[in-house]
Amino acid sequence: MVETQPPLARALEWRDRDWRDDDGELLPEVVDIVCGMLGEADAESLKTLVSDAHEADVGALLAQLDPDDRNRLVELLGADFDFTALTEVDETIRVEILEEMEPEQVAEGIAELETDDAVAILEDLDEEERSEILDKLPASDRFALRRAFDYPEGSAGRRMKDEFIAVPPFWTVGQVIDHLRESADLPDDFTEIFVVDPGYHLQGHVRLDRLLRTQRPVAVTDILEEETRTVTASEDQEDVAFMFERYNLLSAPVVDEGNRLVGVLTVDDIVDVIEEEADADIKQLGGVKADEEISDSVWTTAKGRFRWLFINLITAFLATTVLKSFEVQLAEMVALAVLAPIVASQGGNAATQTMTVAVRALATRELGPRNAWRIVRREVSVGFINGIAFAIITGTVASFWFTNANIGVVIGLALVCNLVAGSLGGVLIPLLLDRLRVDPAISSGPFVTTVTDVTGFLSFLTIATWWFKL
Amino acid sequence: MVETQPPLARALEWRDRDWRDDDGELLPEVVDIVCGMLGEADAESLKTLVSDAHEADVGALLAQLDPDDRNRLVELLGADFDFTALTEVDETIRVEILEEMEPEQVAEGIAELETDDAVAILEDLDEEERSEILDKLPASDRFALRRAFDYPEGSAGRRMKDEFIAVPPFWTVGQVIDHLRESADLPDDFTEIFVVDPGYHLQGHVRLDRLLRTQRPVAVTDILEEETRTVTASEDQEDVAFMFERYNLLSAPVVDEGNRLVGVLTVDDIVDVIEEEADADIKQLGGVKADEEISDSVWTTAKGRFRWLFINLITAFLATTVLKSFEVQLAEMVALAVLAPIVASQGGNAATQTMTVAVRALATRELGPRNAWRIVRREVSVGFINGIAFAIITGTVASFWFTNANIGVVIGLALVCNLVAGSLGGVLIPLLLDRLRVDPAISSGPFVTTVTDVTGFLSFLTIATWWFKL
Repeated sequence: MVETQPPLARALEWRDRDWRDDDGELLPEVVDIVCGMLGEADAESLKTLVSDAHEADVGALLAQLDPDDRNRLVELLGADFDFTALTEVDETIRVEILEEMEPEQVAEGIAELETDDAVAILEDLDEEERSEILDKLPASDRFALRRAFDYPEGSAGRRMKDEFIAVPPFWTVGQVIDHLRESADLPDDFTEIFVVDPGYHLQGHVRLDRLLRTQRPVAVTDILEEETRTVTASEDQEDVAFMFERYNLLSAPVVDEGNRLVGVLTVDDIVDVIEEEADADIKQLGGVKADEEISDSVWTTAKGRFRWLFINLITAFLATTVLKSFEVQLAEMVALAVLAPIVASQGGNAATQTMTVAVRALATRELGPRNAWRIVRREVSVGFINGIAFAIITGTVASFWFTNANIGVVIGLALVCNLVAGSLGGVLIPLLLDRLRVDPAISSGPFVTTVTDVTGFLSFLTIATWWFKL
Repeated sequence: MVETQPPLARALEWRDRDWRDDDGELLPEVVDIVCGMLGEADAESLKTLVSDAHEADVGALLAQLDPDDRNRLVELLGADFDFTALTEVDETIRVEILEEMEPEQVAEGIAELETDDAVAILEDLDEEERSEILDKLPASDRFALRRAFDYPEGSAGRRMKDEFIAVPPFWTVGQVIDHLRESADLPDDFTEIFVVDPGYHLQGHVRLDRLLRTQRPVAVTDILEEETRTVTASEDQEDVAFMFERYNLLSAPVVDEGNRLVGVLTVDDIVDVIEEEADADIKQLGGVKADEEISDSVWTTAKGRFRWLFINLITAFLATTVLKSFEVQLAEMVALAVLAPIVASQGGNAATQTMTVAVRALATRELGPRNAWRIVRREVSVGFINGIAFAIITGTVASFWFTNANIGVVIGLALVCNLVAGSLGGVLIPLLLDRLRVDPAISSGPFVTTVTDVTGFLSFLTIATWWFKL
């Protein structure tokens, strides 16, 4: 039945349907239908289906298509292609699509966007390509975007919208409402208006609910709330996100160094920042570069991961040096070679647990100089308790397995040493890196592993040498 | 100078200052000053300093105090203690503070809050204590909270506010504005009003900016926007957060099974959910329970981590079994015992990289059935490329170190095998767990480690046995 439906009818049907399943994943049917239309170069059906879809859904669709199909889709949609969809895809995909387009076409698409979306789209292009596109924009857009790009990458100035409503302090509520009713060129969606002096210095804001509930003759200065939380345009987006989160803000005005209002940051942009930062932390803790994307090529991915594996190789060789210095003992008692990795691995896992909690607590500002020693003491105690527990378990199993109670005692003692050392390293290393202003999420791993591997092998084999008089 | 300042003057000074440094960390001076006032039981100064502080700052203060001081602070503040500060601290601290208070006192504090904050505070108490507090609340609050607790933990119904503005469809813009001006009992902060029929079935919403810009005689139904994204109260908060993020929502109406409006979810609550979910993923990938907090006791922490270490011990023993089955070869050639951990560890790290990316892509819905095979192929290729790279590096170093080129060849071959196996396991295991509806963030680790440890030892020692005819 469905197969015989003409494409346009199918486009009309799917235009009004939800493209996602209950888990929020794009339905495969949507991709199939679009691929069919692309195959037939059926621009009319495509426009019917895609033009009014939400940018997030179009972005998800682009991500699922092959690179050639992506470009064909953008081409067939022509002016109907909504550039905001490009803010919803990975950098790799975005750059691929943009590089296939003429600068004029990109400029036309960009001109319709708000500054924050335009910046997000142009940010990853190289200087030259970006300049070429900016030159083709209307003067006012060009000026706004050039100014945004003057702020450093990852700063509030790059994320803000420069569309906002500002009124002078001598206006009344009635004048503001009339202004809102009469102006055609207002932002799409706003929840507050700002009050500025003639030099654009911010005096405060009035929330729309307040405005609505006040009589017309009242002066805006009478209902204005002074800003307690403003953002400086050059501020790092992570710090801004943290402020939004802490104080449950919906938006915040952005000012330049002269305290002049230059833009507004809204929480939906901040949600993206929070998501990006969490993503970066998770990836870095897993030994992957923060910007690795699932759409990266094999070669880019392999190169990116090589570095981390190389650092790990060095730490592994360090640990091996310890093993090698005990060659005589290992040859004499091969059980030691068999069991040594258990000591290293248990210590490594305990250290990773501690490190994860420490890195996370540093990121959320829960761990600071004031409670650092309390946390260090706590971690060492936890390491000691679990060290004892695993000394008993592992020691018992090893004793029976190798029918040698002495081996149980040795591995038990080594486990206590290594779990305490691992816990100590797991919390001290991130604290030290943070003090040195190095991101502990990126750099703690290899140091911590080195500590537990070296301590694990060293304690186990030293104790064994001494106990068995090897 | 500062030391001689009377406490009340100091309280007045710090009341108007920012309590945080540039990094957003609470200034130690604030804690010192508060501790001083607690020591003197100087309630007046404390109230001056703390009563008007933002809940997030009071929360940060509570977190930094010792348990006894926390309770003394709450006691001295009395009715001036803002219960919303309890939503800003860890569960452990919250429960500790609440358990020290009388149910009447908690009920009084709770009664002033919005439902979402009240639910957040009472949620962690046990059934009985919660009931006791609810019984002491005014009937309307009690009813609202009981209803919220009827929804499952982690559902939208628990997170929503039940304070919202709903108007009938036959009203005009003028009537709505008059209603807003005249009603005393409106929510603190709102950005839209909802239009409902007499059965409270949701017809749509009107944004405040739209309302402001429309003439009084216009009917609300003429400017109403139909809801495209409603949330069902029983929906899981993670799915809701994902929807907010995807469609950049600021708020969404919550309906019951009968499509009746029961509440509203705002993005500031969702920011907390996103943060919590990211936190849970990071902790679980690091082998820590999702709800482990930095304020947990040593004993709770040790117990929570024991389970993960125990599972790891089993996988470590599995890998050891492989080593033990090669005891003869290890005894004959001790270099194998020295180098084996390198093979296991490089494979383990490559697998962790792949696993991190796969788990993350599953969480963000970027990895699904449609692109799974492409990603698996990509990961295996990456593993193969880095396998070759590290085979050359490690092989060369090992050859010179042990002055035996054959050992270099053997470890090189084993590394290629193990990096490919690790990459394959790192992506297939999370995919499989996800298909089985098990959270891959919690469970992938031990399986992946087992794969790389076993494959690492097995491939290295098998190749060595065959190459050296051991």
